Amino acid sequence: MNNFTSIHDVTDLSALLQTAQDIKELPFAHEQMGRQQSMCLLFFNASLRTRLSTQQAAFRIGLHTVVFDINAGGWNLEFEDGTVMKGDKAEHVKEAAAVIGAYFDIIGIRTFAGLKDREEDYAERVIEQFVRYSGKPVINLESPTRHPLQSFTDLITIEEYKQVEKPKVVLSWAPHPRALPQAVANSFVEWMKQTDYNLVITHPPGYELAKQFTEGVPVVYKQMEAFADADFIYTKNWSAYDDYGKILQEDSDWMVTQEKMKLTNNARFMHCLPIRRNVIVEDAVLDSDRSIVIPQAANRMVAAQAVLQTILQSTFDREL
Amino acid sequence: MNNFTSIHDVTDLSALLQTAQDIKELPFAHEQMGRQQSMCLLFFNASLRTRLSTQQAAFRIGLHTVVFDINAGGWNLEFEDGTVMKGDKAEHVKEAAAVIGAYFDIIGIRTFAGLKDREEDYAERVIEQFVRYSGKPVINLESPTRHPLQSFTDLITIEEYKQVEKPKVVLSWAPHPRALPQAVANSFVEWMKQTDYNLVITHPPGYELAKQFTEGVPVVYKQMEAFADADFIYTKNWSAYDDYGKILQEDSDWMVTQEKMKLTNNARFMHCLPIRRNVIVEDAVLDSDRSIVIPQAANRMVAAQAVLQTILQSTFDREL
Amino acid sequence: MNNFTSIHDVTDLSALLQTAQDIKELPFAHEQMGRQQSMCLLFFNASLRTRLSTQQAAFRIGLHTVVFDINAGGWNLEFEDGTVMKGDKAEHVKEAAAVIGAYFDIIGIRTFAGLKDREEDYAERVIEQFVRYSGKPVINLESPTRHPLQSFTDLITIEEYKQVEKPKVVLSWAPHPRALPQAVANSFVEWMKQTDYNLVITHPPGYELAKQFTEGVPVVYKQMEAFADADFIYTKNWSAYDDYGKILQEDSDWMVTQEKMKLTNNARFMHCLPIRRNVIVEDAVLDSDRSIVIPQAANRMVAAQAVLQTILQSTFDREL
Repeated sequence: MNNFTSIHDVTDLSALLQTAQDIKELPFAHEQMGRQQSMCLLFFNASLRTRLSTQQAAFRIGLHTVVFDINAGGWNLEFEDGTVMKGDKAEHVKEAAAVIGAYFDIIGIRTFAGLKDREEDYAERVIEQFVRYSGKPVINLESPTRHPLQSFTDLITIEEYKQVEKPKVVLSWAPHPRALPQAVANSFVEWMKQTDYNLVITHPPGYELAKQFTEGVPVVYKQMEAFADADFIYTKNWSAYDDYGKILQEDSDWMVTQEKMKLTNNARFMHCLPIRRNVIVEDAVLDSDRSIVIPQAANRMVAAQAVLQTILQSTFDREL
Repeated sequence: MNNFTSIHDVTDLSALLQTAQDIKELPFAHEQMGRQQSMCLLFFNASLRTRLSTQQAAFRIGLHTVVFDINAGGWNLEFEDGTVMKGDKAEHVKEAAAVIGAYFDIIGIRTFAGLKDREEDYAERVIEQFVRYSGKPVINLESPTRHPLQSFTDLITIEEYKQVEKPKVVLSWAPHPRALPQAVANSFVEWMKQTDYNLVITHPPGYELAKQFTEGVPVVYKQMEAFADADFIYTKNWSAYDDYGKILQEDSDWMVTQEKMKLTNNARFMHCLPIRRNVIVEDAVLDSDRSIVIPQAANRMVAAQAVLQTILQSTFDREL
Repeated sequence: MNNFTSIHDVTDLSALLQTAQDIKELPFAHEQMGRQQSMCLLFFNASLRTRLSTQQAAFRIGLHTVVFDINAGGWNLEFEDGTVMKGDKAEHVKEAAAVIGAYFDIIGIRTFAGLKDREEDYAERVIEQFVRYSGKPVINLESPTRHPLQSFTDLITIEEYKQVEKPKVVLSWAPHPRALPQAVANSFVEWMKQTDYNLVITHPPGYELAKQFTEGVPVVYKQMEAFADADFIYTKNWSAYDDYGKILQEDSDWMVTQEKMKLTNNARFMHCLPIRRNVIVEDAVLDSDRSIVIPQAANRMVAAQAVLQTILQSTFDREL
């Protein structure tokens, strides 16, 4: 595995999952693996879990990490080719990526969707240009269209908590006061499609995700119907893909409640966090013993460590 | 010692002080103590000494540290129960604290008083909720009402410089152009009360500190009178507690001067820093050989290291 | 070598250069050298290469590093003597430098020219006061008038790429939409004067650098003439020194183009980065195989490591 920008970079998913499970047993089993290696975590946007869990994952394998909030302490980057750089952008990604690639062995990048221009967001230019110009493995710490470290975490967590071989997993849209990207939802669907779970998506009409992600997955427009017999309720807000970046409804009809949870097969409640209480979900659900959002978030550290170990191992193998 | 949120968490003060004295002799004597352990330092507010000295203390015992300026790179946190989170706060402390507690072994928190609502500040909600929801030892890096790492530092420093068994220690209010919290003063008094020093507080009428801190300590309203025969002058500004958060006077009458220092028993001058020259104190005092503000600040590293060692030792003891 | 604030601190340049060359061979040869030692990198201004390369250099010799963006997370510093600090500056450099010096073994400082007051900028007060009050070795990470880590990097790079013993090296001014300091240019000239290269400066009239830097170096006002037979074109913008901090011309006449490069002796193109494409230089030059801006930037890590090793070695020698 050279990069970890989406599920499509994963060459052996069951081996990656096995690595994660081994890490849960013995987190420090490879504490010298990152010796003399360094990673730069580049944040264009805010982060709590990703920032902290990825640093902790690296620490557990002795991988030196430097965090760089590039908008706060660095330069505004240009991503267009051929421009006359007379504006507010002081450096082109061609140079920035090559220089960071010269200093570090692995590069992690968080860059959110702008939600203004769908084509631009879905082109994944930032990740793509860092892969092209840095010459080093790139890890997606959430990009405009995907959040694969989160999705891998979700897979680890469902594997850990599932009671049946093929659980029914429901991705349920929920309301939110601000327009959010589709990244977590897209990526969740993409990863779940690699399993033999019974995956169902439910959202109000108008919130259809991009077809390249959802093709083949049943969409149910009635939330109650979707919740029937569910083993996992995975809740997430996203703004519209068709009417791009728009909020189509804000009322609390789609909030997850105790009443709705009663329709399920005593389902586990999941969310990637941060979560707005009493907007996305009632306090009563989040504070119940069916909520697994904290062990899910804790697994972010495990997912990141499995990805880092796999990338380092691939590098070592290539160097032999 | 499970937490270090105030003096009340310290189970054995003389052992803690002894640990500090040992650290001054051999700072790297326990350089493997923090192996495979991690600390998160969470800053809601600005910091120089606390930020740098706590990181250095951790470094000396091999404790991995991650600094997180949560307002700059993270999410705005909600601390109220039961709210419908439709505003600018993206995450509730219940989740944030639990997640950070899942990633780290120790959590340090700096959160200043807002100085708008006394009841809210004195409820110490942030520290209290991190203790409750993180499940990990919490260190107070200055909270609305206390700054115990500073006060412990002050104790170490006075022990180091005192010439008599029971020195006269004067906490003297000083003017400042901005409204400052009572945290350092409250905490200093709370710690000094654990000693048999002769403690006196002096400030203009109206600047009385909260009774729960000062009960039993003599207050002298005439600064000159208080300074007589003092061995240590500990200066600090604070805004009013009764007329909460207000500045009642700004003139330089209460500034510490060479003239006033002559009234003392050749006293040492102390301040927690940062200090405004020629507002809090004359240059001549701060630049004299009686000022010990720099060795005092240097002891912040020692105090933090003693606290970290004691917390780690308690954790190891519990795990046996 | 006690400090590294300019070339004048370098006691043995050829030894320093040799150290850099050894580091290129075996970067981790001294990976325990920094054991139990710590460095604070203090940023008053934005940085990408300096921030990342200096941390990486320290990592390679086991030197613990703490990065501190003082304006973001710390206090606004006062640098004037004798002021009554009633304004927005909470701490005097006398205390800040002494405290940081008490916590760390080496201090790196980045502080840009304000470009308002020439005398103030050229007094180099920040660096000078940190040297005076910290009591610890100070490394210049770019100050108002100099950027010696960059200039040492440039020397390493020219030594690496030169085809003749005494190459012709041209420092060529280039246009830029914002007023930039003279630091890189000043410093480059100061370092090149230590070599026996054939150094030529070219810029439009009015952009003369300070005489204390350029004395004895030929200035050619016709860029084409200067480029003739050049082995290295080192491009950089700076604002005027005489009409201090002003932009005198912005048109693209002085941009480096393929056409102009044809006048040279197949010269290498160098720049300290960040670089504005199609303003400072045409894409075609920067993307050609004559451009060495990326290996040049990569050498920042080597230069910083050589400086750190030399300073640590001096400290060890003094302690024997």
